[in-house]
Order: sequence, then C-alpha cells, then structure tokens
Amino acid sequence: MPVVRMKPRRRFRLSPRKLRFTEFKIPHAWLVLLGYLYVPLLILGVLAWGTVAVAQTPTPVPSPVPAPVAPEIDVTVIKESITTITGQAAAVKVAVDTVWVLLCAFLVIFMNAGFAMVEAGFCRQKNAVNILSKNLIVFGISTISFWIFGFAFMFGNGSDFIGLNGFFLAGADNSPATGDAYQGVFSALNWTGVPLSVKFLFQVAFAGTAATIVSGSVAERIKFIDFLLFSFILVGLIYSVGGHWVWGGGFLSGLGFWDFAGSTVVHSVGGWAALMGAAFLGPRLGKYTENGVNAIPGHNLGFATLGCLILWLGWFGFNPGSTMAADPAAIGHIALTTNLAASAGAIAATVTAWILFGKPDLSMIINGILAGLVGITAGCAFVTQVSAIIIGLIAGVIVVFSVSFFDKIKIDDPVGAVSVHLVCGVWGTLAVGLFAAGPGDLYAEDAGPTAGLLLGGGIEQLWAQFLGVIIVGGWVVVVSSVVWLILKAIFGLRVSPEEELKGLDIGEHAMEAYAGFLKEDV
Amino acid sequence: MPVVRMKPRRRFRLSPRKLRFTEFKIPHAWLVLLGYLYVPLLILGVLAWGTVAVAQTPTPVPSPVPAPVAPEIDVTVIKESITTITGQAAAVKVAVDTVWVLLCAFLVIFMNAGFAMVEAGFCRQKNAVNILSKNLIVFGISTISFWIFGFAFMFGNGSDFIGLNGFFLAGADNSPATGDAYQGVFSALNWTGVPLSVKFLFQVAFAGTAATIVSGSVAERIKFIDFLLFSFILVGLIYSVGGHWVWGGGFLSGLGFWDFAGSTVVHSVGGWAALMGAAFLGPRLGKYTENGVNAIPGHNLGFATLGCLILWLGWFGFNPGSTMAADPAAIGHIALTTNLAASAGAIAATVTAWILFGKPDLSMIINGILAGLVGITAGCAFVTQVSAIIIGLIAGVIVVFSVSFFDKIKIDDPVGAVSVHLVCGVWGTLAVGLFAAGPGDLYAEDAGPTAGLLLGGGIEQLWAQFLGVIIVGGWVVVVSSVVWLILKAIFGLRVSPEEELKGLDIGEHAMEAYAGFLKEDV
Amino acid sequence: MPVVRMKPRRRFRLSPRKLRFTEFKIPHAWLVLLGYLYVPLLILGVLAWGTVAVAQTPTPVPSPVPAPVAPEIDVTVIKESITTITGQAAAVKVAVDTVWVLLCAFLVIFMNAGFAMVEAGFCRQKNAVNILSKNLIVFGISTISFWIFGFAFMFGNGSDFIGLNGFFLAGADNSPATGDAYQGVFSALNWTGVPLSVKFLFQVAFAGTAATIVSGSVAERIKFIDFLLFSFILVGLIYSVGGHWVWGGGFLSGLGFWDFAGSTVVHSVGGWAALMGAAFLGPRLGKYTENGVNAIPGHNLGFATLGCLILWLGWFGFNPGSTMAADPAAIGHIALTTNLAASAGAIAATVTAWILFGKPDLSMIINGILAGLVGITAGCAFVTQVSAIIIGLIAGVIVVFSVSFFDKIKIDDPVGAVSVHLVCGVWGTLAVGLFAAGPGDLYAEDAGPTAGLLLGGGIEQLWAQFLGVIIVGGWVVVVSSVVWLILKAIFGLRVSPEEELKGLDIGEHAMEAYAGFLKEDV
Repeated sequence: MPVVRMKPRRRFRLSPRKLRFTEFKIPHAWLVLLGYLYVPLLILGVLAWGTVAVAQTPTPVPSPVPAPVAPEIDVTVIKESITTITGQAAAVKVAVDTVWVLLCAFLVIFMNAGFAMVEAGFCRQKNAVNILSKNLIVFGISTISFWIFGFAFMFGNGSDFIGLNGFFLAGADNSPATGDAYQGVFSALNWTGVPLSVKFLFQVAFAGTAATIVSGSVAERIKFIDFLLFSFILVGLIYSVGGHWVWGGGFLSGLGFWDFAGSTVVHSVGGWAALMGAAFLGPRLGKYTENGVNAIPGHNLGFATLGCLILWLGWFGFNPGSTMAADPAAIGHIALTTNLAASAGAIAATVTAWILFGKPDLSMIINGILAGLVGITAGCAFVTQVSAIIIGLIAGVIVVFSVSFFDKIKIDDPVGAVSVHLVCGVWGTLAVGLFAAGPGDLYAEDAGPTAGLLLGGGIEQLWAQFLGVIIVGGWVVVVSSVVWLILKAIFGLRVSPEEELKGLDIGEHAMEAYAGFLKEDV
Repeated sequence: MPVVRMKPRRRFRLSPRKLRFTEFKIPHAWLVLLGYLYVPLLILGVLAWGTVAVAQTPTPVPSPVPAPVAPEIDVTVIKESITTITGQAAAVKVAVDTVWVLLCAFLVIFMNAGFAMVEAGFCRQKNAVNILSKNLIVFGISTISFWIFGFAFMFGNGSDFIGLNGFFLAGADNSPATGDAYQGVFSALNWTGVPLSVKFLFQVAFAGTAATIVSGSVAERIKFIDFLLFSFILVGLIYSVGGHWVWGGGFLSGLGFWDFAGSTVVHSVGGWAALMGAAFLGPRLGKYTENGVNAIPGHNLGFATLGCLILWLGWFGFNPGSTMAADPAAIGHIALTTNLAASAGAIAATVTAWILFGKPDLSMIINGILAGLVGITAGCAFVTQVSAIIIGLIAGVIVVFSVSFFDKIKIDDPVGAVSVHLVCGVWGTLAVGLFAAGPGDLYAEDAGPTAGLLLGGGIEQLWAQFLGVIIVGGWVVVVSSVVWLILKAIFGLRVSPEEELKGLDIGEHAMEAYAGFLKEDV
Repeated sequence: MPVVRMKPRRRFRLSPRKLRFTEFKIPHAWLVLLGYLYVPLLILGVLAWGTVAVAQTPTPVPSPVPAPVAPEIDVTVIKESITTITGQAAAVKVAVDTVWVLLCAFLVIFMNAGFAMVEAGFCRQKNAVNILSKNLIVFGISTISFWIFGFAFMFGNGSDFIGLNGFFLAGADNSPATGDAYQGVFSALNWTGVPLSVKFLFQVAFAGTAATIVSGSVAERIKFIDFLLFSFILVGLIYSVGGHWVWGGGFLSGLGFWDFAGSTVVHSVGGWAALMGAAFLGPRLGKYTENGVNAIPGHNLGFATLGCLILWLGWFGFNPGSTMAADPAAIGHIALTTNLAASAGAIAATVTAWILFGKPDLSMIINGILAGLVGITAGCAFVTQVSAIIIGLIAGVIVVFSVSFFDKIKIDDPVGAVSVHLVCGVWGTLAVGLFAAGPGDLYAEDAGPTAGLLLGGGIEQLWAQFLGVIIVGGWVVVVSSVVWLILKAIFGLRVSPEEELKGLDIGEHAMEAYAGFLKEDV
C-alpha cells in the first residue's frame, strides 16, 4: 500500500513550543504528550492493520432487489418461494409496526419537553430551575423504576391485581406477559409482533407522563428529594399496579372497562397523585389571603405556549401509538379524533374564558387544548369525529370552571394539572360510556366498549366506566397519601417559608435560571 | 351484572358544604372519606370481577410469523396462498404509506410551534401574549374550518372552480373526491391507498400554515377577533378554493401549472393575504417617521432561532410528505433538495446581509433559511440537486432585498412574512419554469412539468407558472381585501393607539408574557 | 396554447412611481389595479382552460388492493405472480427502511435546535445572538461542505485512508462507495437498499453534529468568520477523513475497531477540535483570576433544559438510525440501551454533583444526560441493558469530574462540550472493549466486536478501541491545530477585549437577543 510512504508525521507535527510562546500560557503538558505519543502509536496501528489488511478482499455488492424466480422452476420450487415470500411479508409487517411504535414512543418521550416548558412557563422565574430540574430528571427516574419493577407489575403474568414476572425486563420476547395482557382494539395479533424492547420503550414513556403531571401541582414549594422519591414509587408501583388492572389483563378489563390510551390509566392516575400532593403541601404563600385568591402569573408564556404545542405533537404518539401496530384505518382515525378534540377544546376554552373573564386568556387556550387532548384519550379509537368534537368542546368548558373550582376550595395547583389531567381524564373516561360508537365500523366485537348511552346503548358501559374511575381513583388516593405522609415524616414535604419566598432555585439548587436579567424583587 | 346493585351515587356524593366548613386543612375530609370508601368498593369490584374471571381462559400466544406453507400442498392451495400473500403485501404497502404520511403530517402540524416562536421572537415582549395566542389557537380554528367546508371545497368533486361534496369529512373513503383530484408526481395510485382521515390530517396541516403566515404580518396592532375570523375564512374558503384549482383537479392543473408542495398554493396564498392585511392595517406606530425607517427589534431571538429550526424540521414533512406515499427515490430526493435549498438560502442571505449591512444579521440568517425552503417548495420533486442550490441561493438574496423593499414602500411586516412567503413563494413557483428537469429520471411523463427554460425547455412552462402565480394572487388579493374590509366595517381592524403603545398583551388579554422581569418603559 | 396571446406583462407592470406618490394610503393604487385586472384575467384563464378541459375525462379510481389471482391460472401464471409479489415485497422493505432512515435523519437534524438551545442557554445573554447565529448557520455550511467533498472523502472508494469519488454527490446510487463501505451490525444488505439521497441526508446530519460541538467550547470570544471557515473544513475534511477510516472501509475498521454510532467518529472528533479551539483561544476574560475559578452562569436554563430534551429525542435517531434499516430487534434494542444510559447518566451526575457541591445542579443533570448518551453511542448495539446502565452511570460520574478538571487546567469550555463529547466519547469507545456482549444474541459474527474484557473476552477488543481513540484523536488534534493556526494568522481568532466585555452580539452582529428587557451592566 503506497499510503505508508506518505510519512505524514513530519508534515503534520504539532509544534508545542511555538504554541507556548505565543500566549499559550498553558503549555498543556498532556496535550503535548499526546502529540508525541501520536506518532509511535500510529506506526503501531499501521503495522497491526497491515497484518489484517492482507486478508481483506473486496465484498461483492449485494443486489438490492431479490432475484426474480427463474421461469423454469417446478412446483416444489414454487412452494419454497411462497414460504420465503410469506416470511418476508410477515417480517416487513413487523418492521412497519416497529417503526410506527418507535416513532410514537419518541413523540411521547418528547412530551417531557412539553411538560417542562408548560410547567416552567406557568411558574415564577425564581422557581424555574427547580421545575426544570424536576421535569428533566423525572424521565430518568421513571425509566429506571419502570425497568426494575414497573413493567413487571403492569404487564407481567401474575394475579388479576398485579403482575409478578419480567423484573429488569428479563424474560423471553413475545412472552405471554406482554403478548396477551395488552387490552386494545387491535391487541392480540399486533402487540405480539413488536419486540419487547419497543413495547417497553412505548410504555415507559407513558409511565413517565404520569409522574410529570405531579410535578406541576406541587411546584414552587416541594422539596426536591420528595419529588424524586415520590416519582420513583408512583411509576414503579402506583401507576403500574393500577395500569395492570386495565391494560395488563387485570380485573378492570374483565369488568368491561375501556380506556384506549389512558384518560384514566395515565392522566387521572397522575392527576389524583397531583391532587393529593397539592393538598398535603397546602397552597403557596400568598396565594389565598383575606383579600381572596391572588393570581400568581407565570413568568414565561412563550415557554408555556411552546410546551403546549410540543404536547399536542406528542399526543399524536400517545393516542394513535396505543394501537401498538400500524393499522392504517385505526391510526388515521385516532389521529383525526385527537386533533379534532384538541381544536374543539381550544375554541371552547377560549370562548368560555372570554365570556367569564372578559378577555381571551392565553393560559386558558393552553389548558383548553390540553383538556381536549386528555378528554379524547380514553375514547379516541371508539368515537366518531363528531363525538370527538363534542368531547373536546365539553372538556374545554370544564377545564375553565375546574380551575376556578380548585381555587375556591383552596387547592393550589400552579399549572392547572389537576383540572387538566384529573378532571378531564375523568370526563374522557366517562365520555366513552356516553359516546362509544359500539362495535362495527370503528372496532370489532370484543375489541372495544358497547355503544354509549347517547348512541343507542344502555347505561352499562357508562357504569363500567364510572366504576373504573372510582376504583383507580381510590387506589391512587390511598396509596399516594400513604407515600406522601411517609415522605413528610422522614424529610418534610415543604421547603422553609424563607426559601419559598426567596425562590427554590437558590435554596434547592444554588442557581438562577436567568442570570444577567433584572427582575422584580421577590 | 352485579355491579348495578352497588348504588355508589349516594356514597360518593361530594358535600360542598362540608368542604367549605373544614376550609381544607389537611386531611381533607372528603379525601379521607374517599379512602374509607375505597376498601369496600374494591371488595365489591373483586366480587364482580370474580363472576367474570371464571369464564376467562388463557389466550394462546399467537405465532408472530405466519406458518410456512406445508410442503405437500397442491396447486389450488398454492393459488390461495398467492392470493393471501398478495393481499398482505398490498396491506403492508398501505401501512407504510400511512405511517409516512402521518409522520409528515405531524411534522407539518409541529410547524405551528415554529411559526409561534419565530413570530413571537421577532415582535416586542409587550405583544408576545397576543402573538402566541394567535399562533396557538389558529390551528384549532383551521382544523374546524377545514373540516366543515375547506376540505370539501378543495378536494371534493364539483366544478373546475370549486369542490362541492365531502363537507364535515363525510363520505366514502377513497372517494373520487380525494382519489383522483390530487395532483402530484405519484398521485393516482398512492394517494388513494392512504385512508381519508390521514389525507385530511396532512392537508389540514397545510391549510393551517397559510393562516399562520398572516399572523406575522398583522402582528402588534390587529384586534384578536379580526384575526380569528379572518383565519376561519382564509382556511375554509380562500385557501381551499385556490387550492382546488391546482391540487383539487381544477382549471390551473389543466393549464399545465405545477406546484409540487405549495410555493403558490400555501405560501403565496398566505403571503398575499398577509400583504393585504398589513396594507389595510397600516404600519405600527413609530415605525416610519420623518427620520426614516425605525428598526423595531424583536424581543427574543432565542425563540426566533428555535422557531426557524422547528420550521426546517417541519419542512421535511411539508415537501417529501406531499408525495402522499413512501416512494423511496422520490421522498429521498425531495428531502435532499429541500435541505440543499435551505442551506444555500442561509449562506446567501448571510453573505448578502454581511455585504449590505456590514454585519451577519441573525434575523437575515433565519429569513434566508425560510426563503430557501419556501423557494424550493414548488419544485422540490422536479429539479436536480444543483438546481435546488441555485434556487435556494437566489431566494436567500431576494429575501434580504425584499425586506428592505417593503420598508421602502411602507408596508410594515414585523416578521418579514410577506418577503419570505409571498416573494419567495412567487420565485419558487417561477423557478419550476426555469429549472424543471423535465420528465425522465426524476418524474414520469404527465407527472410533472415540461423541462424548464434553463434546462433545454421552452418558455411554455414558465408561462404556465406565471399564469398560476397571477391568477391565484388575484383571487387572494380580491377576496381577502373584501374580507378585511368587512371585518373593518364591523369591528375595526386596529386596536386603539393607547392600547398599541401599552402593548396588546394587556389590552387584548390582560396578561403579560414575562411576569417578574424588569422591562424598558414602553 | 392560447395563453401565449394574453400578453399580461404590460398589464401587470408595477409602477413604482405611482406607489411613491400615493404613499400607500389605502386603497393602494396598485393593489386596486391588481383587483381590477383580476376579473378579465380570470376570464381569459377560464377560456384557456376550456380548450383543455374538453379533452379531460374522469380517471377511473384505481383499486387500492391489487386484484387477487384468478382461480383458473396455470403454473406459468403462478410463477409470474410469485415474481411480481417478490418484487413488491422487496420494494416495500426498501420503503420501510427508507422511512425509518429519513425519520432518524430528521431527528438528528433537529439536534441542531438542541445544541443551539443548550449552548445559548449556558452562555451569557450578551453573546446569545452570536451563539444562535453560529448554531443556525452551521448546518447550512455543513450541508454544502459535506455535499461538495465530505461525503466523497468519507464514503467514496479510494484508499484505506481517504475516499476519492462521489464529489457533489454525483455517481450511481447503490455504488460500491456507499454500498460496501459502511460498517455496522446490519450493514451490507440493508445499507444498499436505501437511496443514496437518504444515506447522504442521514450522514450529513451526523457531520453537522461534529461542527456544532465545537461551537460550544469556543463560545463568547471567537470571531464569527473563524468559526464559519473552521466548520467548513472540519466537516469537509477532518471529520470525513477520520470517518472514512472507521465507517468508510478504511484501515481502522480493518484493525477491528468498532464504533457503532459515533462516540469516536462524531463526538470525540468534535470534542478534540473543540478542545484545541478552546486551548488556542484561551479562557474568557475574568474566568480564571487570582481568586480562582469564577463561575460564569448561563443566562437561560429554560433554553438549556429544552435543548437537552431535544438532544435526547434526537439521539433516538442518532443511535438506532445507524442501523440504516428498520431491523426490528436491532432498532428496538438500540433505542432501549440509549434510553437506559441517558437515564443512568442523569441520575449519576445528579447524585455526584449533590455529593460534591451539596446541591443537585441543573447544569449537571443536563450534562449527565448528554454524557450517558455520548457514552452509549459506540456500544448501543453491542451491549446488554445492564451494561448500558453501567456505561451511563460511569459517564454521568465522569462528566462531573471532567468539568472540574478542565477548569483546573484552565481550559475554558463555557458549555462543557469537551467533557461531554470528548471525554465521554472516549469512555464510550473504550466501554465497547469492556462490555461488548460478543457475537450471538445481539449481533452476528463479524458484525460487531469480540466479547469485552468484563464479559469473558480478552484484552484484544479493548486494545483495538484504544488504538482507534488515539489514532483518530491524533489526527484531529494535529489537523485542527493547523487550521486554527492558519485562521489565527489570517483573521485572528479572538475578538477584541472591548468587544468581549460588551458582548459579541453588538460587536459581531449589531443586534441584541432580548430587546426591551433590563439587564445587569456587563
């Protein structure tokens, strides 16, 4: 090989002495050393490579398209060809499903950015580092917690109340633990085709969502350590066990309860935990005084708006991805109902706030969009386009009144997380009982709820939905209360009043989010 | 169902009076109550579930790969196998196309975040809430408007001037309304394969883009209600009817006019409406004084830069997605030309601004990228890589001069929307007539324009492009003027001078975007 | 075509003089004029269209599913059917692979937004425009540079040291240049199936990443022109030639060096160049004084956090996309190891910083996530889930100490780019030699490294990894030093002290990023 003759060492040698004299005060010894070591090392490398290179022969270019079947084959060859093609077609189907579910998983994971921006934007700048820190690390904690035991509790085989195998994501791919247990319109066949790693990734993104919801309601006063530990337990235990009842083959699916993408399983679970957190913490200093409710405006509505649009994007993974397969009619319909409900929620909340408060309030537009999205999540695969719009419109109205309601009962939820995720999560779950189209065009018999009360069905589905709401809610309220109380006993839940007034950024993190800007005195 | 006997209504009734009395000291009475109720409810649930569970038997795990054909089959079985596989392969093809179009639709929908960030960043902080509100709700309005009648006007069967069926997205999937009417390189076959819901979602994202363009040019002085109503009409009528002429099988496609992804159909339509809006509104107070043109710097160039990069990302959905099918060679080529033009636009605008103004201006880098992207949109499927670079370079130069030009004629466009979307949209449309490669390697006969003037073709294609620019432009100018004038007569277009000076955030929304920060007096 | 007779040029000529006189009071004369002209033009257009429309007949709706094979076919027809289906299945496979690689390319391209936000957020507001400008234009420069010669140097056929064909992306698709040369687990077959345009787009996104890494370490003091030119050369020459050795069939792949997605090829290449840049520039004024190291806090940790989450998202394109094919098991496993390592890195860095500094530091959470991601990049396809977590944990610890280390040796790296990308890139590359699972479940013989030292293998793989680190590092250190010195001789590297104190935004761009906000005196 002629290249060995190039002797590039001399030509390219770094001259450290020159560097040192010309204002390179740091004659960084180790850089110089590295430079010197480079030459002999390169020689060694080339020698080592030489012994290997001799054996190398050019690889022939593989034909990109499989060779067509030769014309003179007999029936045996035909049979073999059919077997081969059948396997190839099945493999491509799995590939499409995998790409689809991964795409959706990525979008849902990106919702962490949406939550971070919405929650940070709606809080004060003196607590921005704290909120951002919580929303950034929470997905890391969720991943590890769900990997160790959450996924096993939720999707593992076990009893009707809890899954008990698959810890550390160990076990065979396509095991019954994940193969059968997943409830959904297109479940059995498709869910099994996608690799276990992909199923986990999609599901851990959901689990993380539940934890980020809590972050908002407890903002601006909770101790950092409490949130970290609560998230770990919420994702690994509370969310997972409740999820097992619905999506893991547990008793709620047996009761006929349907929640396609998680109005209850994800959003109201996060919402109940968020409500309990806000309740146990109590309101922020100065929020409720003798003069009434004091609005504490968010510090960056650009962040909040961006976050809302990121969440809107993420919901296109959240809802249509819950098919766990690239079923064209289903994923298209779900994406469409999702978008219609979000749009309807935006308009309804805007108009409602305009009427109530006299102005179109940006934070209510944001909440209206999220309300519509949460509201359609349970029924996105089961309802028609018109129903989706109605569900979204009602969610958009509800959320505005809900925000006022929680202020009235002095539950201080800085970002409206309880109103959006819990209240609209409950609404969306019940809406399945009202608006489900019934088996037929949209979904097959036994693959979804019976027709809703308003669409010619009876009260049965609505009752099942109501049961599911109550049972899951009770579970989360009780267990999360226990966890909050334990944390309170060990660490205390709340930062000191001095720290709260000064801002958690200094107290908890010794940083500020906007160095160099002048701010109002806190 | 035994559950009906539970009568939970009484047990769970929320007692608001009690809530009021306890003042929600922790533990909140009703939460505790809920906790107590939880256990008996759970027992009931388990009992109810028990009756169901008995009937449940474990589902066998489905094999992920279809069983290979047995070796002893006869020819009849072979034929059946072939029929089956043929159907499967076709279904997988539809699945891939659907995933692709949905991915692109999501990216285009995410462009709303890009527009929100660019436009907010380029305006003053006192108007940030207003801009963000407009850019957030506009996609909700667009969705509803396009769902009710926009899609029907654009893609429904009807005359050569307007579509007249498919309102409320009703009608059969794969109807002629959407099956035949879509013009594109790979249209007929592929466009029909994707479900109607997916087609709608992709197209509504485009429609929304046209409306967001207007938002920028009318910023910082328009009344909120005017923008909402104008957007509704623009998307539902003006954009849709114009789009029918080109993409819905209307008379412009018959004239041989080609606009692959919407330099004219989307960008210049939005741009003309934006121009008329800016003209009817007049300039912002203090923009043009006796001392000349006063620069009004944007308040957050971080937002603007982020928005530009989000738009760049979104354009990878906008242009390659317009194939409406995952045709590998086509989508790869289009993504590549799109990226090359954006890069060339960035460099050209940077250099141009550096020469003209003496400094590399960040807002011009942003505008240069967007100019390159708008410029390549019409021809992305029809031109070579080198042509794409030339188109982008010229767009990057044009946009810098155009921004100065509109200031000279005192059209005040705070974010440069007219220069980017109208001027470069016109340029990109004409560029098809100059640079189209002609049928052959890139596209088939009758699936794209004849060769452009600079690539061995005659003047015909350029002339057809020119006609399309003028006809669509005339339509938008006339109808949008009528709409602006009607809105002006009813509501007035412009906020009061006092409100404008104080900022629209307080006047229109009673909020501020950056609470807690100290700002310069306005 | 009758349209040629329309001669619209005269009718539409814009009269600038008229414009000047009317001063654009509404109604603007020319706009009105346009309106009047519109009607006759429309009539003309309709007439023109009429002559064409007559010839148009409605296209029949194509059936979305290919017609099943008729039952009475003979064996010859069967053979033809099989040939057809085989081709279709192969085409669909290519389509899935193409969609997957494009999706990943888009995600990696979007990492530019992530880098822009992280780097801008970690710098001071007085230099924000400068950082944003660099990070925005750098991908445009990278695209053009990689298109002209980078891709040819990296993947073209040539010697074992440099590729020498395929300049301007010319040449046949699926050429040996890209067909054979790409090293990877699933390389030969799959890489060849995807169109050349798609390969380029994915690879140019990688090349751009290397350049953005440099941007951070040289921030707040480098001249804009120097960065632009350095980026052009880094992408076109330094990165590409080094990459050829590993991914382009060069001598390092012959040595048994494995770097699946670029811990060395991308991150440490960018990191070494970043290190040399920071070294040649010297520290920012006031960073190291007699009082020790002065922390210079970033101005927008919201941006930094958002950027980190965008990068996390982008890495799901970076690592799993490096398969260049939608291989379900592989892309799922890689996405999972990537996510586990990021999560582990986040937790490790948080805990480490908490212990060392007494507080959980947000910038260290960010760096920990990025450290985990960089660390897993080389081995993501080769290591188990548990190994991925260990690699991420160690990376998260390393990065905290590394940041302190570089401050100790007075290399001023404002955003920690060297610690994240160089140090953890080296760690990740060596980790392959420690943790590689060996051929078997995860990858085939000859498609990845031999088992690592800690998993039953010998020292061989670790030695090969070490060699690769040293050789690539030496190359980058030497050549980038030469380039930096040449730039220094021609332009000078550093802005004047006055400009640095005042901020580069005014000095280099005559703009400020946050007009209207009050800031601390600089």
